[in-house]
Amino acid sequence: MTEAQAPHSEAEVIGVLRRVFHQGRDVQLGIGDDAAVLAPAEGAVLVSTDMLVEGVDFDRSWASCLDIGWKSAAVNISDIAAMGAEPNALVVSLEVPPQCGLDDIEELARGVQEAIDALAPGASVVGGDLSSGAQMAVSVTVLGRLAAGEHAVTRAGARPGDVLAYWGKLGYAAAGLAVLRGGQVGSASAAALEACAAQLRPRPSVEAGRTAREYGATAMMDVSDGLAVDASRMAGASEVTIRFDPTAFPKLVTGLGWTRYELGLDPWALVFAGGEDFGLLATFPADDIPDGFLRLGTVESPAYAPVLLGDRTLDYPEWDHFSGKRR
Amino acid sequence: MTEAQAPHSEAEVIGVLRRVFHQGRDVQLGIGDDAAVLAPAEGAVLVSTDMLVEGVDFDRSWASCLDIGWKSAAVNISDIAAMGAEPNALVVSLEVPPQCGLDDIEELARGVQEAIDALAPGASVVGGDLSSGAQMAVSVTVLGRLAAGEHAVTRAGARPGDVLAYWGKLGYAAAGLAVLRGGQVGSASAAALEACAAQLRPRPSVEAGRTAREYGATAMMDVSDGLAVDASRMAGASEVTIRFDPTAFPKLVTGLGWTRYELGLDPWALVFAGGEDFGLLATFPADDIPDGFLRLGTVESPAYAPVLLGDRTLDYPEWDHFSGKRR
Repeated sequence: MTEAQAPHSEAEVIGVLRRVFHQGRDVQLGIGDDAAVLAPAEGAVLVSTDMLVEGVDFDRSWASCLDIGWKSAAVNISDIAAMGAEPNALVVSLEVPPQCGLDDIEELARGVQEAIDALAPGASVVGGDLSSGAQMAVSVTVLGRLAAGEHAVTRAGARPGDVLAYWGKLGYAAAGLAVLRGGQVGSASAAALEACAAQLRPRPSVEAGRTAREYGATAMMDVSDGLAVDASRMAGASEVTIRFDPTAFPKLVTGLGWTRYELGLDPWALVFAGGEDFGLLATFPADDIPDGFLRLGTVESPAYAPVLLGDRTLDYPEWDHFSGKRR
Repeated sequence: MTEAQAPHSEAEVIGVLRRVFHQGRDVQLGIGDDAAVLAPAEGAVLVSTDMLVEGVDFDRSWASCLDIGWKSAAVNISDIAAMGAEPNALVVSLEVPPQCGLDDIEELARGVQEAIDALAPGASVVGGDLSSGAQMAVSVTVLGRLAAGEHAVTRAGARPGDVLAYWGKLGYAAAGLAVLRGGQVGSASAAALEACAAQLRPRPSVEAGRTAREYGATAMMDVSDGLAVDASRMAGASEVTIRFDPTAFPKLVTGLGWTRYELGLDPWALVFAGGEDFGLLATFPADDIPDGFLRLGTVESPAYAPVLLGDRTLDYPEWDHFSGKRR
């Protein structure tokens, strides 16, 4: 409909994408037909979708196209990991402003493929769409699979008596966002740079999710909106109360000590309310939790609040991705 | 990131979407967890994605949110129909400008559900995402399935000696676009209104696709970019020449006679180059084609052009969705 001249045709772009995206196992028919065809599998099929929009989820002043591509794949891979399943296919729709060149599109695609290579090497990009738009946006849908007889781990299965545990970092991505927004990357400390990397290139673990399932995790979810909020969602879905153990946290908070003097932020708030770390919050039936998971608390019968820190209620604000404000 | 006040929270929006989208067969776990889970199936899994962007694919001056939702589902359902498979799940990502109200979002969702009810009643919306953005955009991914032992019909299987046939309308959606853009809907003839409906609410047929597969279709695709261009793609993928039979077309062209005096358009150009009709172009091994399909020509060994009309080459321009211009 728009009559603007674009510097590249759909055919050119598809040529680039076919070169960047290699087709792995499970793909009977990849990019180029009306639909992709995945080999029959005996277990359940999982699907999830997440979109990143410029000006809402990222800013091109601090995120490269490679970063944006990586993150758009990673946040989707995280959703399949959080069910204890294996990502096997992704489709990627790109909306790019007219001033974007073919090189930007190729960088976005490379970021997606690099995240797949690093985080879900069995998966393939099997399709996509491309449009011009007023800003950049990347919409990814990921498919996952389970073997026959394997069950997805939902957020609704936590039971009183279970142990609560977490795999991954906490507060790093939010601290990184503060560094990136502050434009202080050039003079940042090593710790601050690590936090920037956590924000730009999150590294969810499919392996940790699968291991948790094999250990009999009763509930699991990825922590994308902050530990306190996401734990309260798990508590709500499971109809339990989650009690965090205060003695588990000083170690996590100490690691973010630099944020107090470098950024003026409260490390406790980062740990409990910082979003986008894409670690795994899981509950296990006994005290035998897998390596790599840190014990954070216990699951109890519903009490006076869905989430407690020791005997105190926790009231950290939630990051609302839609309205773009803390509520 | 943006600090604009939105009139509705993510939780409110999700509440609306859960009410609008009902969960059908094949859904083990629907909207609300990290990923949806579909019941194990014995056949292949298909996946395709298409995004509609305001100002590129539609204009809100002539498309309602209900129309936009319908079409975003329909164009995806069409891709699964074109493989001879059955759509079973969709995920929907919405990008809406801050001035959009909850009622607009609900209308978009209702449009998606209405298209599913009409075109693929076994399918369910099992997930989605929502973000604010500079313009409206709807990114849908559709999953489809085949039964064990059934094969998807690609565009690459046409063989010399096959018959070429088409199910659906041709040129109507492009004529409708001209009427809608001209702002002449108020005074439009019945034929023009039918064309507007074809543009706003395309009706691809899952049934026709399945029937074609059962009749042994050797190749199939949906016609979204125009008959001539899409036929040349099928010819290229199949390494054949497609020869249209000129005697098959007068009937199709006559039905669009009104466009010449009402819109000043050439009905022949609409039939061969008009996009977005979402009918099915298929090749069959013998002259026994299914009811509802119209015989359009034959498949031959590669000749001097991929597509011929009788003995003439066909050179209708292609609508490039990405650059937004005819090439």
